[in-house]
This record gives sequence, structure tokens and C-alpha cells, in this order.
Amino acid sequence: MSIQERLLRLRNLMKEKEIDIYIVPTADFHQTEYVGEYFKARKYITNFSGSAGTAVITLDEAKLWVDGRYFIQAAEQIAGTTVEMMKMNEPGVPTIEKYLADTLKDGGNIGFDGRVVSMGRGISYEKTAAKKGGKIICDCDLIGEIWQERPALSKEPAWILDGKYAGETAESKLSRIREYMKSNHAAVHILTTLDDICWTLNMRGNDIEFFPLVLSYAMITQNEVYLYIDGCKLDAEMKAKLVKDGVRIRHYDEIYEDVKTIEKESPVLVDPDRLNYALYRNIPDEVEKVEKRNPEILFKAVKNPVEIENIRSAQLKDSAAHVRFMKWIKENAGKIPITEMSAAEKLEEFRREMEHYLRPSFEPISAYGEHCALMHYAPSKETDAELKEGSVFLTDTGAGFYEGSTDITRTYALGEIPDIMKEHFTLTLMGHMGLANARFLYGCTGVNLDMMARKPLWDRGLDFKCGTGHGVGYLLSIHEPPADFHWQQYARQTAVLEEGMILTDEPGIYIEGSHGIRLENEILVRKGEKNEYGQFMYFEMLTFIPMDLDAVKAEMLPQETRIQLNDYHKAVYEKVSPYLNEDEKEWLKKYTRAI
Amino acid sequence: MSIQERLLRLRNLMKEKEIDIYIVPTADFHQTEYVGEYFKARKYITNFSGSAGTAVITLDEAKLWVDGRYFIQAAEQIAGTTVEMMKMNEPGVPTIEKYLADTLKDGGNIGFDGRVVSMGRGISYEKTAAKKGGKIICDCDLIGEIWQERPALSKEPAWILDGKYAGETAESKLSRIREYMKSNHAAVHILTTLDDICWTLNMRGNDIEFFPLVLSYAMITQNEVYLYIDGCKLDAEMKAKLVKDGVRIRHYDEIYEDVKTIEKESPVLVDPDRLNYALYRNIPDEVEKVEKRNPEILFKAVKNPVEIENIRSAQLKDSAAHVRFMKWIKENAGKIPITEMSAAEKLEEFRREMEHYLRPSFEPISAYGEHCALMHYAPSKETDAELKEGSVFLTDTGAGFYEGSTDITRTYALGEIPDIMKEHFTLTLMGHMGLANARFLYGCTGVNLDMMARKPLWDRGLDFKCGTGHGVGYLLSIHEPPADFHWQQYARQTAVLEEGMILTDEPGIYIEGSHGIRLENEILVRKGEKNEYGQFMYFEMLTFIPMDLDAVKAEMLPQETRIQLNDYHKAVYEKVSPYLNEDEKEWLKKYTRAI
Repeated sequence: MSIQERLLRLRNLMKEKEIDIYIVPTADFHQTEYVGEYFKARKYITNFSGSAGTAVITLDEAKLWVDGRYFIQAAEQIAGTTVEMMKMNEPGVPTIEKYLADTLKDGGNIGFDGRVVSMGRGISYEKTAAKKGGKIICDCDLIGEIWQERPALSKEPAWILDGKYAGETAESKLSRIREYMKSNHAAVHILTTLDDICWTLNMRGNDIEFFPLVLSYAMITQNEVYLYIDGCKLDAEMKAKLVKDGVRIRHYDEIYEDVKTIEKESPVLVDPDRLNYALYRNIPDEVEKVEKRNPEILFKAVKNPVEIENIRSAQLKDSAAHVRFMKWIKENAGKIPITEMSAAEKLEEFRREMEHYLRPSFEPISAYGEHCALMHYAPSKETDAELKEGSVFLTDTGAGFYEGSTDITRTYALGEIPDIMKEHFTLTLMGHMGLANARFLYGCTGVNLDMMARKPLWDRGLDFKCGTGHGVGYLLSIHEPPADFHWQQYARQTAVLEEGMILTDEPGIYIEGSHGIRLENEILVRKGEKNEYGQFMYFEMLTFIPMDLDAVKAEMLPQETRIQLNDYHKAVYEKVSPYLNEDEKEWLKKYTRAI
Repeated sequence: MSIQERLLRLRNLMKEKEIDIYIVPTADFHQTEYVGEYFKARKYITNFSGSAGTAVITLDEAKLWVDGRYFIQAAEQIAGTTVEMMKMNEPGVPTIEKYLADTLKDGGNIGFDGRVVSMGRGISYEKTAAKKGGKIICDCDLIGEIWQERPALSKEPAWILDGKYAGETAESKLSRIREYMKSNHAAVHILTTLDDICWTLNMRGNDIEFFPLVLSYAMITQNEVYLYIDGCKLDAEMKAKLVKDGVRIRHYDEIYEDVKTIEKESPVLVDPDRLNYALYRNIPDEVEKVEKRNPEILFKAVKNPVEIENIRSAQLKDSAAHVRFMKWIKENAGKIPITEMSAAEKLEEFRREMEHYLRPSFEPISAYGEHCALMHYAPSKETDAELKEGSVFLTDTGAGFYEGSTDITRTYALGEIPDIMKEHFTLTLMGHMGLANARFLYGCTGVNLDMMARKPLWDRGLDFKCGTGHGVGYLLSIHEPPADFHWQQYARQTAVLEEGMILTDEPGIYIEGSHGIRLENEILVRKGEKNEYGQFMYFEMLTFIPMDLDAVKAEMLPQETRIQLNDYHKAVYEKVSPYLNEDEKEWLKKYTRAI
């Protein structure tokens, strides 16, 4: 069925239900970043396959809001569908809220599936409709009604993450959560976000594309923990472990009825960004709602010492695999047939050789030449380009080990590349090193530090249209709040950088139709000197893979960056060479030489 | 009368009126930064003479909250008074709000003069008292009751700022303000802040220490403007001009009664940071309050083309005066008797030679050696130090010309100075140049850019405990909102940097008991290239005075800073030399040489 036909059927249903505007976000019932096949409704109705974006469909328009990472990809995928792209944060482009307010007719209704929309977003839609004297209709899944052969909900088994990887028991985590609930006068805490649930119960699974998460809900009180989950995911051992932790198991859907029975005297902690709107609406009106961020967000972002040691080891293993890959691709590109997809497979092969490797930690980006300009390009059979000398290859991929997840980007020169690519590589490298080597006072957020990465670009009228880095989960989500690096300070709140947080540092330059550069390491927030000025902080590099010296214009590097790069390469050799054979070591020596 | 005696009398009055905690901020009825002699109540009750600080007095404690600029000065001035210093933003030091909440007994009352407290602050005190079952008592000026020989309210004349200086008529300004009122559904706009009133009516005066402002209130409706002012300030010509502008003149105090008569159908625009609490309380309860920032704040921060041209000219004149002073002090310190005060007088003398000079634009800081570590040190007869070779002299002063106000800091090496001072000078210079030469995308605020100034310091575990820069008014206040440079992003909101804003760039290093360095230029926000990434912005330097090369360790300068410094010095010579005689030119040539 073509997109036009799907839109036609959707609009017929909308008319039937008196819905004037229907909203299809990219989301499951749990506000997960990547979603399982069952939940790819926005892709179904627009053809756009990116990991973020919202479709808004009226009776005569179909609009798709996407962020800067996806402008190029979305334009290609929606071509000929009648769907129009709305470039978020570009001048003159209204926000979804503004568009709704401008477009909804008097007495008009807004429809959406309340389970795939956050409480905060749902309330905002509610207000917009109310202002026009209309209402919201949120107990319908219209895409589900027209979607023939919709994939089933995942039934993959769940598993327990051992204490030697988790570093803290579920009991201890629950006790910290309950402490937080007490101090915020909340008797009940409802969890819909899978990373929060999996972190709390030291549980992992296989229900979401790329993320080892388990489809479930949870409800925590001072004495009980209820886990809402499809029973088929739990084997006897797993069940026993959960019961031992005091967890009561209920069916996946039962939470929607259970929250209706919360008593008036039991205030509920609700996180407007994380709780889904349907659940929020099911909590009785007379129950007090305590609006707070889920405490698990900050708890899990600050990695414990066991997790940190594990992550250091995962990063080293992944760096070694990457170094082998770098040698292979630098030596073979243009000489033997290699495509974006076969290169990705080769890197995956090197990773699989490493102990405790589980799976890719997110959708691999493997791009050659002009494809590198598409920030989130994933090669397909149709686009799979062959790697040749004279341009760059960009790999942004990650591994999930029992010892944690990685998220690493390198851009490699294949043969001799044009000067402009070297220049952009060098500027990106300057930005990367500038941020990674920042020293700052405790209290700073990524909004203070972001410019350290952008300065070399901004000085030359260049920029990249996305944040500079994000928190990384431990076998959970790959983009983990609450801390990140971005400069638009009122766009979203970002947390103070706390010791133990792990973030990515990934500036880039993207030239449509030509090339793209991105360099990404993970960095750990550490405490430095404390003196009369306060607590100084710094970053520890966790990733140890050479920055391709074939792409560096050494004469452009400020002395400070040159020293930082040489120090970094020295560390790369020291840390990674023990994993390598003599031939590989010799090669690495050359690619980590001081310049 | 000693401070102890004053406190004793105050506490007797507090007991009489059943006040448990009495608050004395540094403020007049208009939230002005500097206050006239009549309003120096906080100094009267604590002995601390700084320009900011709040005293909170209970029946057995007297606390004084001061910010980092004043820690050293306040400690000296309150020694032996029983007043205790509370260092704002230091670990473990409660905010005033926290202290009140912790200290106020059940059923206790908080007292203050409602006219010297902002609406927002007053409401917060109200809530604190209400939580304890107590109330606020705000119709009393207890310091006034014990203050014998209190200076009278200023009766200085007001004057009109000519159109060739103001660049926009009162009529045009009023029309913009009324547009803003309309779009915010406000029928009445009450102005208590003197800079907003003086800017709107193109009026200046002499009622506030240093600032050419006029004690007054104003009330604007769609058809009327009322100016509340002591009639003795207005001569016939001035009165005629105001009447011609449609301004109705009422007595200074009458506004307190007039606001009581605002009609129910007339929503009032109130700025909680700027309206005083007593006026707010006098507006009838049934009148709707539209809480918004005063529109004049942003309007006057964005300088018009006439103002900008005037300010460039004022800065050049002031730079020339400063260059003469620099030559004089560098050549004479240690050779003839010069003290901090006589040096300040000499600089003032050079300034007075310049056309259209009016007065200093703020309290001059003129400090030698260890006094430079006191960020806001003003020399007095008791402290006036003699300038000798071997240390630094810091001058942070400004001039008010008809063509605008300046705010400039230089630190000069007198003779050969210790290496550590040169090091700190060089780091400060690196920070100064880093910020002044920043290129950034439109949408940035000072929170994004602040680190450009701090980086060289933070890299070495150093910092300065204040913002890096502030907006500057045009013959109005010297610290002008809404834009500034600071890094603690949740401390206070700061506006997006708009073309036409003028700010200071003034990093520093302060070593208690030894020395202090500060280098301050004014910079103008300009639009640069606009391309696919957005609108790039940059700063134009407005101040042209050498950075003392005798204090620079050239080998510490990154290549980038070295080029920036040489370019700057080239511009200094080109722009200032036309004002100088041959001897002075030759001297300037040497102090602006490329290094």
C-alpha cells in the first residue's frame, strides 16, 4: 500500500471519529528512543525511517517534524509521498504546538494514541484543543487499525544482569528510590520507561531494536514492587530471582487498570516527560500528583565504581577491535571490494572476537563519501556504496558488552583525500580535543562547555546542527539523560556534570553532497583539584583509537591541541598495544606517532 | 553612635512593633544599584559601605549577606560591630530565604520598608512568614526612625537629553512601549526604576550617586503618561518640554495613592524584579496583574545607531584620556609622590579635558598592590596607599559624556613586577581576548560564552568570583540588564545577545593580600556572516587603550592570542594617535608594538 493510500485510509478513520488532526510520534508505550517493529507507526505512515520525528496529519496536509540530523535523509524518503518536512529549529518553521494552535479549527479535535505520548505532551495537546473549544481523543490507535500485517509485540526472554556488572543490588537501588519518594512525599511511583525499570531491577532483555531492554511497566510503593510484564519472558530462574527481590509479577496490560485503584491518600510521583499520557489519565483525579523527574534518571547516569571499571574495560576491548578495523580498512579500501555494509560487518566481526560481546548498542552508521553528510545514515542494499580511495569513511557504531555499552565514531581518510576534507577533519579534531580537555568548576553544565567544541568551527562560519554529546547508558539506552552538551540553553534543561557521568564528545562537519566528518570518544566526568575557587572537574578519556593522522593538517593545529593529540596517541598505544600482535603493534606505532 | 548602639535601638523598635526579623537591603524606592545618601540605611546599620549587600537583623543576631566582590572589604568594615558576614554562594552558607525560614519562630513576623524591597522579594518574604503563621510588617522604616541627621532626599535639577544624543524621541519610545502593553493585554504600566523612566522620557538628572538619574515614578496608559517627581527639579523649559510630550506631572509621593484608584478593567503590567513591593500592595486586589519584564529593559539595552555612533566617539575620547594617564603613571610612579586617590584625580583631570565630559559614571576604583585584590575597592583617606615600583596599579573607572558612559579597567605594571603578577596578567589578557574575539551563532547568551574568558584560568585552577561582564547603560545605570556574561546558568536568566547591545569584558585574578589583575573593555554585539548554519555574531571592540606590555609574558601567549593582541594594539595606535601630541604618539607607538 502506498503512503498516499495509507493517508487516505487514516483520513477516513479520522472523519469517522471526528478527529481533525492526528499526531503520530516516534514512540512506544514507554518513551523509548528506538522502538520495536510493532511500534513503527510513524514510519508506516510517512516512509521516513529515522529514529526521531513526529507526523501531524490533518484532513488535507501531512507534515513531518524532524531535527537537523535527518533533514537530508527525510527529504529523500518522503519524496513523492505528499508528506512535507518541517525542519525543527529552522527560522520560520513553527513548532508542533504552534502549528496545532494555528491549524486547528474552532471546535476541532486532536487525536493520538495516549499510550505513545508523554504526559507533558498530552497535557499540552489538551490545552491547545481546549482553547479552540475542542477536545482530545486519545483512546485510539488509528495507525494500528489500517496497518495490515503489523508485527507482533516482542516476546523475547528477559535476563538478570549479574552483580559483578551492575555494581549495586536491586534492593539497594529500591531503597534509594524510596528515600527519594519519601522526601518528595510520594507514596506511589509509576515507571513506564524501560531503562529506568531495567536499571532498578538489574534486568535486561531483547525487546527493543538495539537496546537490551524489556517491555514492562513497574509500580513502586514503600513496601511493594509490581512488575508488569508478559509472563512468557520469564523463565523459572528469573521468576525466582524477582520474587526473592520482593517483586510481584502482573500482566503487561494490567497496570492501566491497577492505577485506577490508587487511593486518595497515596500521592503519586509522576514525571511528565516519562509517564505516558494514558496512564496519567487513568490515575484518579483526586489522587495528588507530585511532578518530579524520575529519580532513576540521575541515579543511573552517575555510574558506580564497579560500572566505571567495567566500562573502562569494555572501551579498551572495543578500542582494540576498532584499531584492527582501522588497519584493515586503511590497508584494503580501494584494493579489494568493500562497501559500507561489508565494512560494518567487518567491524562487527572484530568486535565479536572480544570476550562478553553481546550486540551492537545502536543502529550502526557506516558511510562513505557524501553519505557521511547524513548524520544518521544507515546503509541499505539500495544505497550501499563501495569504498574507494580519495574520500572519507565514517563509522559511528557501538558495542554492548556485559561490561557496558560503547558509542564511538571515527572518520578515516581512504588514500589521499582533498585538502578541504583534511581541513574539516582538523577543525573537528580541534573541537573534539578542546572539549575533552576542558577543565571547569563544579556546577557547569554542557551548555557552558559546548562552545569548547564549536569554537574552531564557529571561528570559520561552520557549525553542526545537533548537540555535541550525550550521556551513555550501561547496557540501557544509548542517549541517556540528564546531562549532555548543547548550546541552546533554553531548548532543554541539562543537568550539572557530576562525577561518574559518562558522555560522548562528538563534534562534526557535514557538507551535503560531498562529505562529512565526525570524531567521537566517550569521556568520564572526574573530580580534580579542590581549592578556594571551588571543586574543579575534568574529563577522563575512555576511548583509545587513533585520530587518523592521514587526515590531519598539522600546521592548522594550535600548539595546545597538538600536545593534547600527541598525549592522547601516546595513551592509545600504551593501552591498546597489549591486545595486538607484532604486526598490528608496528602499524599502531606509526598511527600514534607524535606530530 | 556605634553600630552596637544603633542595633540596640533598632531591636527596641522591633520589639515595640512585634517584628522578629528586620531586613535592610541596599536599595532606594526604585531598585537603583547605587543609592543616594538618604537611602544608605544598610551602611548605617552595619558600617559596610559596598554597593550591594543585605542586612538581616534578629533580636540576637545581625547578619550581612555580601557577594564575592566584597568578602574582603566587608570583613574589614564589620570587624568589631557584632555584625556577621554571610558569604553568598559559598558552600554551607544559606540564602537569605533559607535563613529566614530556619530562623523565624512560629507566629513570628518579618519587617521591612516595603518601598525598598522589590515586589518579587516582598512576596517571597510574605510566603515565608505565612508558613510560620506570622505576617510581614512593611509600612515602617525603622532605620529612618533611629537615624539622626539623615541626609535629605536629593533636590537636584533634571535635564533633557537632546535628540542628537538620545537618537529616538520620547514619543517613539512611548509608542513602542504601548505596543508591547497592548500585545500583553495591559492597560497600565507602572515604572519605578529610574533608568527605565529616564530612558523613556529622554530625561537625566543628578539624584543618585554616580548615575545621572532623576528620583521619580511614572505611570503609562494608552493615552496618558504621569511623571511623579518633586516639582523643584523642573525648571520652566523642562516643564514645557514634558507637557509638550504629553506628560502630566504629579508629586513624587502621589503615586502610592494613585495606584489605589486603578480600575478593575485595567490590567497592570508589573515587573516583579523592578516594581517596589509597597506599590504592588497598593494596587487593588481585583485588578489583574500581568507579570512581565519591563519592556524598557530590552529596548534600552539594544542601542540605536545614533547612540552607537556617540558611544564609539565617547570611547575614543576616553581612550585618549586614558592613554595620557597611562603614560603619566608609567613614567612617574615611584619617582614623584602618587597615591591611589591622587592617581584617580589625575585620570579624572585628563578626562575633564575632553569635550562633553559630565562626571564619573560609577564609583572609581583606584587600587595599588594588595588593594587590587578587593574587587570593588574605593580608596579612602585611611587606606590611600602610595604607588611604588614593583607592584601593580589597577584603575576601574568610567566617564559619563553626553555621548554615553564608559566603564574601563586597566592594570599597569609599575617598574619591574614579580613574575607571578606577569603570569596572572597574561592569563587575564588571554581570557579577555578569548571572549572579545568570540564568533558565535545568534541565540547564544553570556552563559555560552563565559568560558571563553575563564578557560586560561580554569586550566590552571584559578577563577574569579563574579561575572565576566555586564551590559552598560547610555548615561543611565552602569550595570544594565538583561544581558551579561556569567557561567552559573541557573543563577539568573540572561538574555540572548542582540545586535546593538554593549557589554563589558572584564576577567580578572585576585590574590588576597598580594595583588589583583583586571582588564576591561567594552564590546558591541554585531551581526556577522549569515549562512546555512544561521546568523553568526561577533563583538566590535569599543575601547582602545594598550594592554600593558611590561606585564605580558609573551611566551605564554597562544599564537591566536598573540595575533589578536597585535591587531588590537595596531587599532589602538591608529584610533588614538590623532588625539595625541608627537611625544605621546612616540610613547604610544612603543606600547602598541607587535610582540
